[in-house]
Amino acid sequence: MSVVRELAAGVRAGDLRALAQAITLAESTRSDHQRSAAELLDVLLPFTGNSTRVGLSGPPGVGKSTLIDALGRHLTSTGHKVAVLAVDPSSARTGGSILGDKTRMTELARDPRAFIRPSPAGGTLGGVARRTREGLLLCEAAGFDVVAIETVGIGQSETVVNDMVDVFLLLVQPAAGDELQGIKRGVIELADVVVVTKSDGDLAPLATKACADYAHALQFIRRKHAAWQPRVVAVSALTGHGIPDTWAAVEGCLHALGDSNRQELRARQAKSWMWSEVQEQLLKRVRDDPTVRAILSDLEARVAEGTLSPLAAADQLMALTDASASPG
Amino acid sequence: MSVVRELAAGVRAGDLRALAQAITLAESTRSDHQRSAAELLDVLLPFTGNSTRVGLSGPPGVGKSTLIDALGRHLTSTGHKVAVLAVDPSSARTGGSILGDKTRMTELARDPRAFIRPSPAGGTLGGVARRTREGLLLCEAAGFDVVAIETVGIGQSETVVNDMVDVFLLLVQPAAGDELQGIKRGVIELADVVVVTKSDGDLAPLATKACADYAHALQFIRRKHAAWQPRVVAVSALTGHGIPDTWAAVEGCLHALGDSNRQELRARQAKSWMWSEVQEQLLKRVRDDPTVRAILSDLEARVAEGTLSPLAAADQLMALTDASASPG
Repeated sequence: MSVVRELAAGVRAGDLRALAQAITLAESTRSDHQRSAAELLDVLLPFTGNSTRVGLSGPPGVGKSTLIDALGRHLTSTGHKVAVLAVDPSSARTGGSILGDKTRMTELARDPRAFIRPSPAGGTLGGVARRTREGLLLCEAAGFDVVAIETVGIGQSETVVNDMVDVFLLLVQPAAGDELQGIKRGVIELADVVVVTKSDGDLAPLATKACADYAHALQFIRRKHAAWQPRVVAVSALTGHGIPDTWAAVEGCLHALGDSNRQELRARQAKSWMWSEVQEQLLKRVRDDPTVRAILSDLEARVAEGTLSPLAAADQLMALTDASASPG
Repeated sequence: MSVVRELAAGVRAGDLRALAQAITLAESTRSDHQRSAAELLDVLLPFTGNSTRVGLSGPPGVGKSTLIDALGRHLTSTGHKVAVLAVDPSSARTGGSILGDKTRMTELARDPRAFIRPSPAGGTLGGVARRTREGLLLCEAAGFDVVAIETVGIGQSETVVNDMVDVFLLLVQPAAGDELQGIKRGVIELADVVVVTKSDGDLAPLATKACADYAHALQFIRRKHAAWQPRVVAVSALTGHGIPDTWAAVEGCLHALGDSNRQELRARQAKSWMWSEVQEQLLKRVRDDPTVRAILSDLEARVAEGTLSPLAAADQLMALTDASASPG
């Protein structure tokens, strides 16, 4: 049996070590590993698609890990199998807070019905997305019926995560008024559910106020789905208040969308994934071209200072890739 | 003298027929025309960059043309030379409302210090952007110190226009509450100035109310520029009320940004234009490849229905372009 077939069998059997190995394979940048990962995904593809795909995002300190810990345990205690993929596009810069995140989900990490996987540091946002999408499919093939993708909110990352899930949860602080400005532009529009965290103790009144503020703000925003008006939920991971409500909101959104809308959403996501993969590989081919590398920084500097037209620069780059692709 | 040199000289002299011809050349999809247009742009590049680049967008019926007519005349009467480029990405579908737009700017169209140019129908949004960016530079080379780019708001088009201007104006109807939902997601975040139109007669109180509502909504949105808090202005193209205020808001924004921020913004826009041009040409090369065309719709259908992994599909497409680019 080939390594890929063996790994596929392990994943299908729900063996968490095999799942972890499969994700590591998908995350590898070695081209032979990439080929094996693609082969593995092909074998497992018929067994994917059967989970509720949930995205969770919010600013640092909002309490993502704590909420996922509480929400995850609520789900496993009601019969679900929960996988958590943590994406941290900023970890290449910050040195990685990922392990910290993982150890913070202390309860869920010990739960046999749960699987927690941090994303590796580095790479482009697109690269993270590629690996995370593969990770999501692998978790589905391993039998997880809820896959949560967590990301630190840095603006672009939420969009990337939103493009691979069924329901997107935006986590926000119990603060009001001006502080709502901390939410990046365009991000609140992605939310299917807004979760106000830390709704306990002294912060409870602020959380209630924030709920009202967000509900108000959502009125000014065109709906993401015609069939679903985003809901705002206040939760406390400490007391458990709002945790079942949060999942009820996720299920409410899925119910409102219905099967056909969800299938359509996923079909659109899959096609767009294909094209963004093609685009990324094409751009990589250009950027890696030695003749391009020799002139790129000079070209970009001249474009930035306005002495070379962006079109002329693009044509130069295209001509170089033409020349190196053909023998003439 | 070559045709390109002759055209360049005409544009530089402010000859509007030469400018119109130059834009037509840039709009052509013929590859020899594209080459001439690129050459023309190279010659004229040193004479570009000296205008205030303003984007205007809003839903159909908001009164874009009427406002531009009034604003344009205000500007020409105070010594400016104003070029208007109208982009209608929907015209390929609707059969084009562009000519209607042009004839609606009745006063400005007769003004010798103004130039109005509708974009052609068809093409991708990226294609429209390419031609419009070239048109903008050509207008600058012809001596226009204000270039306004107008687009019908359809969500994506505002982003494209925002990526080529210094200041973005969002035009909205004098309506309140729920009707604000008509603004597409993410678009209000692009606005440097929100212009509430039709602030006259019976609609004046509604316009005042809308101003307050938008000013309130803008509080919930992270600033586009740290240095500038977006302003809301109520205008009437009929009475002229608010027209000077609108331009004062544009100048206020520019002043707040300062020269170095504006240069940085433009440098970023130019580099991103270069890369989006490269990306578009690369994707076009793939899509136009005969071997790709033969299998693409089948591939996309299988990806959409989930029987083929998007990565495997992307790899197939890349392999085809490899094979057709090399002789082996």
